[in-house]
Amino acid sequence: MKDVEVKSLYRESLLHADSEITVSGWVRTNRGSNKFGFIELNDGSFFKSVQVVYEAEFLDNFEEIAKAPISAALKVTGTFVLTPDAKQPFEIKAKKIVIEAGSDPDYPLQKKRHSMEFLREIAHLRPRSNTFSAVFRVRSMVAYAIHKFFQDKNFVYVHTPIITASDCEGAGEMFKVTTLDMNDLPKGDDGKVEYSDDFFGKEAGLTVSGQLEAETFALAFRNVYTFGPTFRAENSNTARHASEFWMIEPEMAFAELADNMDTAEAMMKYIINYVMENAPEEMEFFNKFIDKGLIDRLSNIINSDFERISYTEAVDLLQKSGEQFQYPVQWGIDLQTEHERYLTEKIYKKPVFVTDYPKEIKAFYMRLNDDNKTVAACDLLVPGVGEIIGGSQREERYDVLKERIEEIGMTEEDYWWYMDLRKYGGVKHSGYGLGFDRIIMYITGMGNIRDVLPFPRTPKSAEF
Amino acid sequence: MKDVEVKSLYRESLLHADSEITVSGWVRTNRGSNKFGFIELNDGSFFKSVQVVYEAEFLDNFEEIAKAPISAALKVTGTFVLTPDAKQPFEIKAKKIVIEAGSDPDYPLQKKRHSMEFLREIAHLRPRSNTFSAVFRVRSMVAYAIHKFFQDKNFVYVHTPIITASDCEGAGEMFKVTTLDMNDLPKGDDGKVEYSDDFFGKEAGLTVSGQLEAETFALAFRNVYTFGPTFRAENSNTARHASEFWMIEPEMAFAELADNMDTAEAMMKYIINYVMENAPEEMEFFNKFIDKGLIDRLSNIINSDFERISYTEAVDLLQKSGEQFQYPVQWGIDLQTEHERYLTEKIYKKPVFVTDYPKEIKAFYMRLNDDNKTVAACDLLVPGVGEIIGGSQREERYDVLKERIEEIGMTEEDYWWYMDLRKYGGVKHSGYGLGFDRIIMYITGMGNIRDVLPFPRTPKSAEF
Repeated sequence: MKDVEVKSLYRESLLHADSEITVSGWVRTNRGSNKFGFIELNDGSFFKSVQVVYEAEFLDNFEEIAKAPISAALKVTGTFVLTPDAKQPFEIKAKKIVIEAGSDPDYPLQKKRHSMEFLREIAHLRPRSNTFSAVFRVRSMVAYAIHKFFQDKNFVYVHTPIITASDCEGAGEMFKVTTLDMNDLPKGDDGKVEYSDDFFGKEAGLTVSGQLEAETFALAFRNVYTFGPTFRAENSNTARHASEFWMIEPEMAFAELADNMDTAEAMMKYIINYVMENAPEEMEFFNKFIDKGLIDRLSNIINSDFERISYTEAVDLLQKSGEQFQYPVQWGIDLQTEHERYLTEKIYKKPVFVTDYPKEIKAFYMRLNDDNKTVAACDLLVPGVGEIIGGSQREERYDVLKERIEEIGMTEEDYWWYMDLRKYGGVKHSGYGLGFDRIIMYITGMGNIRDVLPFPRTPKSAEF
Repeated sequence: MKDVEVKSLYRESLLHADSEITVSGWVRTNRGSNKFGFIELNDGSFFKSVQVVYEAEFLDNFEEIAKAPISAALKVTGTFVLTPDAKQPFEIKAKKIVIEAGSDPDYPLQKKRHSMEFLREIAHLRPRSNTFSAVFRVRSMVAYAIHKFFQDKNFVYVHTPIITASDCEGAGEMFKVTTLDMNDLPKGDDGKVEYSDDFFGKEAGLTVSGQLEAETFALAFRNVYTFGPTFRAENSNTARHASEFWMIEPEMAFAELADNMDTAEAMMKYIINYVMENAPEEMEFFNKFIDKGLIDRLSNIINSDFERISYTEAVDLLQKSGEQFQYPVQWGIDLQTEHERYLTEKIYKKPVFVTDYPKEIKAFYMRLNDDNKTVAACDLLVPGVGEIIGGSQREERYDVLKERIEEIGMTEEDYWWYMDLRKYGGVKHSGYGLGFDRIIMYITGMGNIRDVLPFPRTPKSAEF
């Protein structure tokens, strides 16, 4: 008989009522007497497990089943019975149980609380725990929701390159990629490494952003997005930084800053709605055990019209607030998390876009405003975190961009193809970047980026 | 007035008939007299362009518009008129045209045939050509279709790591990743590079496959898939090899080889159907200009029950065929493309799964069959290409796997976490790998992998 998924038992209970079914899964708990027992069987298809009732009377191998340890794999055939008066909504009365795979008694994920640190050391097993089962299923759903949001809007998904030999991206924080023999590097007359012998014939590294390449596609397809891994070789061991993380970077032609914010706001609401609808069990779990107040905070996002204020207004509000900040506020500073959170949590109590930042603290490609002091940037601040999205209108004017590039000590030749976009039909365009892993932290309430990445990479750590 | 997308004009023509609309896009062609002119305007939202008719009588800036070069960006407001008797199904009678961005006369993508080689040199502009507009839109659609196929089946999408310090993957073809100063490498007493000072504290590289990590997730979620970039530092300059490419790797627990083939067959049919339904204009273009017979070949895939034969049967058939192959066929050899194509094109005339290959020519993790000679592998061969999917049931038996690992000169300690999966509920499981870029080649008929990757990376080439 073909297996029924536990998800189907929960979502379509009536379909299976009183029928004989087969379910395969792993033992989460197994308790009983010498006459009968109960197994919580989880098949991975759903957050919750199904209860299996087994009795000595019906099973030849009752004693073997009674000893089946946590994580053993079973194939259970029996009658699916609704139990409206019991704690669990239904159970399977087993007629036959086959052990598909045993499990050693030293299985590290025994039924007790484990520290997050310990669970990271067994990243190959932690998805079997309630917390990580919920986290990684929600991660998968959010990834899909993002694709669905953009595809339904006719955005073209573009795979921007991972390995890059472009100087454009700010090589400082880049990982280097090479096939040279590190113990026998080819050297030139000046004693420096001869990269012409390397795989790509020049220095190469891992991308820190696909934005510049995405712009080339936006000026062909109008609306595009990237969704792929990006890298930062920053030696910072914080709960919010990973060396390898996934980014979404939409880019839209014929779009100004307001269009950018419209899309970002709609996207945020869409993905939160999608998860609330498709993973209510997981969200309830997070709200109860990981981050009380999570669902209220997310509901507030869905139900708010996001505020939009300029950086100058934001600075003014913060200065007038009377609040003692660790970093004093004055026009020209980069807003710190404490400032961002004050704005979104205390003043507006909802998400806030802050726009038009001083050009000195923003990237060269952001469009210079007419005041010559600020650029058309927009950061989205949300309660509980601060900045979660950063975006801007891009500088589409050749001469202005050239000047900005020279200001940062580069030349237009370094950016020849990026400059080309400004020569040939280079209309106004805008885009933003969203750290996927941080969105998952926000939606699940998980406090450490290491616990939303399947196999996190951080300084001195690249296990599995 | 808000822009209407050209896609909507084609897909929902009646909705717009005789109404005033605004469309923004780029000039593909512009021809006319001193009284009126015609512009093919493409806004990137759709493969086809819309015809704009403009007349001196209605436009103040007629002369300026008449000179608008290819690739200039225009915002056109006018009446949308159905023209059932004309060559194009409708046109816009312009009332107002604003030039949003000009284009230099040296624009490289003029209206003539360009070689694929030349177009690769302007990869930042080629998506504006018909061919690459079609390729990259179809690429985006296939990516989405793959996600949709698996998500609808409740598979969990898992981001397996890109950077890996694991020895499991066969380091030979791996790119190395480092943050060490290549011109001043730290050395140990033995004169060798001291990797303990490197970012991850040990040698690291770019993944060649996410399969092993995906297995850890399959044994928690039952059905999972990866979809991400993988890397091969192979110095091979062929039309089918890129150094950076995208892979899909589904992995299923409680699944044997037949289940694996069922999923692969259903997936292939699903994505081809999806593209045929959602990109008929692009597919017609490919069929006409890139690869005559493409649509027949793809239709044949949708409408066939894929054949399933064993390697041993395949060898037998090839030997009895009387065909003179370049590489003679005998039991034990790895099938070459000529053999694969003969099987699928000449003998079966439809896709063929070949199963149960000699263990010597397959990977260590494939499940050993009872004959002790073959493993439970399955390769999918398709007409026109040969192998397009490779999969297997995985060796779930601890002792058998240990022996196979030792045969390849490794130890079980090297694979401690992979071995752990066999200790704790390690049920039968299966999976396969699909080179995404090769699928795009197959679906579009494009002959070179460099022309289905937005910015291809190959030996000595990592531009943009």
